[in-house]
Amino acid sequence: MTSITVVCHQLAPRIGDLDYNRALSESAIRGASGAQVIVLPELMQSGYAFDNRGEAHAASETDDGPTLSLWRALASELDIIIVAGFCERLSAGRVANSLALIQPAGRLTVYRKAHLWDREKLIFTPGTEPPPVVETKIGRVAAMICYDLELPEWVRLAALAGADLLCAPVNWPDGPRPADERPGEIVRVQANAAVNRMFIAACDRYGEERGITWVGGSTIVDANGYPLAGAVSHQREQRLVAQLPLAEARDKFISEHNHVHQDRRPGLY
Amino acid sequence: MTSITVVCHQLAPRIGDLDYNRALSESAIRGASGAQVIVLPELMQSGYAFDNRGEAHAASETDDGPTLSLWRALASELDIIIVAGFCERLSAGRVANSLALIQPAGRLTVYRKAHLWDREKLIFTPGTEPPPVVETKIGRVAAMICYDLELPEWVRLAALAGADLLCAPVNWPDGPRPADERPGEIVRVQANAAVNRMFIAACDRYGEERGITWVGGSTIVDANGYPLAGAVSHQREQRLVAQLPLAEARDKFISEHNHVHQDRRPGLY
Repeated sequence: MTSITVVCHQLAPRIGDLDYNRALSESAIRGASGAQVIVLPELMQSGYAFDNRGEAHAASETDDGPTLSLWRALASELDIIIVAGFCERLSAGRVANSLALIQPAGRLTVYRKAHLWDREKLIFTPGTEPPPVVETKIGRVAAMICYDLELPEWVRLAALAGADLLCAPVNWPDGPRPADERPGEIVRVQANAAVNRMFIAACDRYGEERGITWVGGSTIVDANGYPLAGAVSHQREQRLVAQLPLAEARDKFISEHNHVHQDRRPGLY
Repeated sequence: MTSITVVCHQLAPRIGDLDYNRALSESAIRGASGAQVIVLPELMQSGYAFDNRGEAHAASETDDGPTLSLWRALASELDIIIVAGFCERLSAGRVANSLALIQPAGRLTVYRKAHLWDREKLIFTPGTEPPPVVETKIGRVAAMICYDLELPEWVRLAALAGADLLCAPVNWPDGPRPADERPGEIVRVQANAAVNRMFIAACDRYGEERGITWVGGSTIVDANGYPLAGAVSHQREQRLVAQLPLAEARDKFISEHNHVHQDRRPGLY
């Protein structure tokens, strides 16, 4: 494994405007040509602030819908791994807050957010499967969505399954914080990376929907938990690019006698 | 529960100089008179950088030794909770990297570090008991030591047991980090606090022993994970004081529908 290039493209999808969002995602993905991985925001395909399940269902797609079909074609054409959020149509009127992890050969992995944020609980059906960790030609790539990152147990699952890079589409809601402090969501990404010696690329959104605004805090951190790109609140479009020496994630030693995973004592937890 | 005052007094113990260290701790504890809690560094009583187990054993004390006897007397005299590290003498020549959590009435809780750092593995016997969480008149106070904080599972145990305030004697070894970045150990304290909505007071040391230096990063963070005091590398003596509204740790809701502990899905972990 040599260094790979990862792009997080922070965009502002429009709620329910699937054509606009699809075109916006295509432009971003084409703009990342030459990179090995692009991460786009949570619910990129649909927008976020649905009033109810019916409205979300109307904006949802199955995995052979127009957006995922486009993303698969682009992954193949551009030889790039795409990780992006979409509103997934399930059976019986249900919907999930999902992501697609698409490899260049077109292989699709769908993950459904397991830890739902706020009113998402009124709209989406939570996932019941662990975060995926897929073998790719660049290394092992894992994925989860936004509030999932706030559960260190969930991040640990991906890391223990061997993830070198965790890609996280997010929509971090903005809120108060002390002046001059880095947003806490970013701090927690840093911690998750360091305690697992794993790279993390979190792609946030910006803009406003129905009174909700977001941190705009897209961040790419190294296996020590220090930022390589982003890690500030920029409430506008931004395209982060970082070179990641992914092999560093295979070395879990942080001192001569300490290995971040072997030091765990699961019998005591 | 109204606000309480917590002091972290960052000092430089001298290896093996028990009289000096005892006097240094007494001065710091007396200086915190009026506070409800004082936290002192890991291995405050003994110093840190032992060459081998025999040397550590020579500097060790049992819980009725002169240092812990002094601390108990001071806790009672000053009506203060003391959390401080000591080199504990076990049976058969063994030693533990331990802490004393002493309540004003003199009640002593001893905890033995469960996750050992680097050459500590050659010297100390690791603990096998979870971090203590004790009911006190100011709220529920938990404690653990240094590298224990790097295991989110361990911090979670204390939080799930109801801790309002986690006190952590630490000796954070200094190392390279990007310019202008907050030391990662502090970042991880912030994350641990936020994902559990629990206050954390981590008391580091400074100085140099046998080629080892420390971050000098003592930190007190609130239940949102933002610093109230410290949170920078100051490699000299410092005395942090913060007022903690501990009742905030009893409210685990971070949105109308999200509770940091009830949102866990342990059946999936």
